[in-house]
Amino acid sequence: MNVKVKWLKNQLTNLKLDGMIIANPINIMYLTGLTEEGILIITKKENIFITDGRYIESVNTKLTIDDEIVVYNSKELDKYDYQNIFTMNDNVGFEENYVTYENYKKYLHTYMVNLIETEGLIENQRIIKEPEELDLIQKACEITDKAFEYIIKNIKEGMTEKDVAFEIEKFMIKNGADGLAFDSIVASGENTSMPHAVPTDRIIRKGDIIQFDIGAKYKGYCSDLSRVIFVEEMKEEYKELYDFVLNEQARMENSFKDGVNIKNVVKDRETDYKLKNYNVAHSFGHGVGIEIHELPMISSKKDNILKENSIITIEPGVYKPGRFGIRIEDTYKVNKTNCESITKCSKNYTIIKLA
Amino acid sequence: MNVKVKWLKNQLTNLKLDGMIIANPINIMYLTGLTEEGILIITKKENIFITDGRYIESVNTKLTIDDEIVVYNSKELDKYDYQNIFTMNDNVGFEENYVTYENYKKYLHTYMVNLIETEGLIENQRIIKEPEELDLIQKACEITDKAFEYIIKNIKEGMTEKDVAFEIEKFMIKNGADGLAFDSIVASGENTSMPHAVPTDRIIRKGDIIQFDIGAKYKGYCSDLSRVIFVEEMKEEYKELYDFVLNEQARMENSFKDGVNIKNVVKDRETDYKLKNYNVAHSFGHGVGIEIHELPMISSKKDNILKENSIITIEPGVYKPGRFGIRIEDTYKVNKTNCESITKCSKNYTIIKLA
Repeated sequence: MNVKVKWLKNQLTNLKLDGMIIANPINIMYLTGLTEEGILIITKKENIFITDGRYIESVNTKLTIDDEIVVYNSKELDKYDYQNIFTMNDNVGFEENYVTYENYKKYLHTYMVNLIETEGLIENQRIIKEPEELDLIQKACEITDKAFEYIIKNIKEGMTEKDVAFEIEKFMIKNGADGLAFDSIVASGENTSMPHAVPTDRIIRKGDIIQFDIGAKYKGYCSDLSRVIFVEEMKEEYKELYDFVLNEQARMENSFKDGVNIKNVVKDRETDYKLKNYNVAHSFGHGVGIEIHELPMISSKKDNILKENSIITIEPGVYKPGRFGIRIEDTYKVNKTNCESITKCSKNYTIIKLA
Repeated sequence: MNVKVKWLKNQLTNLKLDGMIIANPINIMYLTGLTEEGILIITKKENIFITDGRYIESVNTKLTIDDEIVVYNSKELDKYDYQNIFTMNDNVGFEENYVTYENYKKYLHTYMVNLIETEGLIENQRIIKEPEELDLIQKACEITDKAFEYIIKNIKEGMTEKDVAFEIEKFMIKNGADGLAFDSIVASGENTSMPHAVPTDRIIRKGDIIQFDIGAKYKGYCSDLSRVIFVEEMKEEYKELYDFVLNEQARMENSFKDGVNIKNVVKDRETDYKLKNYNVAHSFGHGVGIEIHELPMISSKKDNILKENSIITIEPGVYKPGRFGIRIEDTYKVNKTNCESITKCSKNYTIIKLA
């Protein structure tokens, strides 16, 4: 049996659960490597993956005997088969943060068990990355760095935000990415004032500030990078904000390591913002892994101890509505004694010439 | 107030509900045009969109006074503000097919109301497309047709499935698409035996069969097209399956129109498959709109009457595990008296030369 499924079975025993129904495809991929649609069911006796005709062949190609996962075609199961998966009134864990209210009711009816909330059991385990996972994230970050370095040399007269975004995607895929970790943000001029701007047909021109928020996905794992550059010239007004944001990022980077309470670090940053009368428009970071946003939360809302081998972003940003905004972001690995940037491209003032 | 929000308010009155919480971003986009993260709340008195600092500026740019939607920043609301949105113990609809069990419990606690299941109220309304929606889907289909016609003339010696998929995406975006309606399937040779194949690094070569399943998204609306082509030659074994699949599609197309029970039409197709000893590996079609898969279901499981101005696909496919598969799919508009294909590219045997 693979180590992650074995880990889960041990957890279920500790929690006095008779099994678990895993429906979140991200958790299924994490536990089994499978990306096909289906439901993973862990019982005391066995591990079952229920899929359908579209995926049977591909699932059987991926799994080996060592996986100890039995594959069923949902079309070939009747209601008694489902009722026989567990013993009636077993205590069975489910993902209350993924399963809809409608499916919760269906599960009760289908499996005839007591459904027990598992409080992010698998999501919390996903915080601590395995060595193989760290390698994949590192590779995703390398592709992202390269894409940024490529694009800032290849923005040509007349290109729109959409053109630039497309060139980034093309470069990432050519360089081994599965695809994008998320839709790229390429915002220019006044469009940078919106933290989540979508690339438009606006043409990049002299005097522009350009905000990038980009990330490649590599073998299912994400990376995340934000940079700001300037076209032909850098207006004086940009410098103060740029320096402030960069400094905030450095302070967080210097504070984060294994055992630190995230809440306190974020509170300090919020104080800095308040002193400057800047608005905190979004969180200061997030965990990264199979999902672009996953645990841990980088927030001052509650106590939250940072752990070794977590992957997080640090991304302070300041936005002047209708005028411009600046956000700088890197992906970091949390170590025993420090917090190490995996994305590595330059954070110097970068003033490009239009090719 | 816009017509769709007005429609919803009338429905809530009919259902004796005091309001509704809409959390599904697809339904929010359908009702308001907003694509920003947030929750739409309809009460007797007003319409509220609760978002956060990342989106406030962009939401306020999109909405006009005529929309009659009040925008709040969630960061500025405390628990009493939430409790004052409704009157205690109001009967408030929610999307039980979208809201997780965890959020269902949070809603109960936050709003102090009775939550009532709305049984796909908005999803069912989305089946009947408005004229503006039909125009957008038509445009998405045109781009998809053009992309297919372009790619079959531009597959070059040495290109992989991934290369071909990328050229399709590039063409669609250059021709006005927002992006892809879904990840393209480009499967060649034995890879076609899996209905949901992901493009690989396999190089296209002489004698190959290639399965395409592609679709552009245009201003938020999807299209869906599947075609099979042959490289340099068409092996005899492909013909029987190709003709069978094409014929099944034609039969469904001829049967579908306003008022027809989908179940009966699909049952007839299942009989055809049984007679040939073919396996029904996936459904024969699906509704299309803002989502690539939406209502109506094209299934024999229950009675389901087809309605005028629905958009559906018809996509019979047959798969020989480990060998090859063939699926042909078009996007159709359901009319009073017929079912009309909106994707229009050729379904003749297509044998390409590698450029």
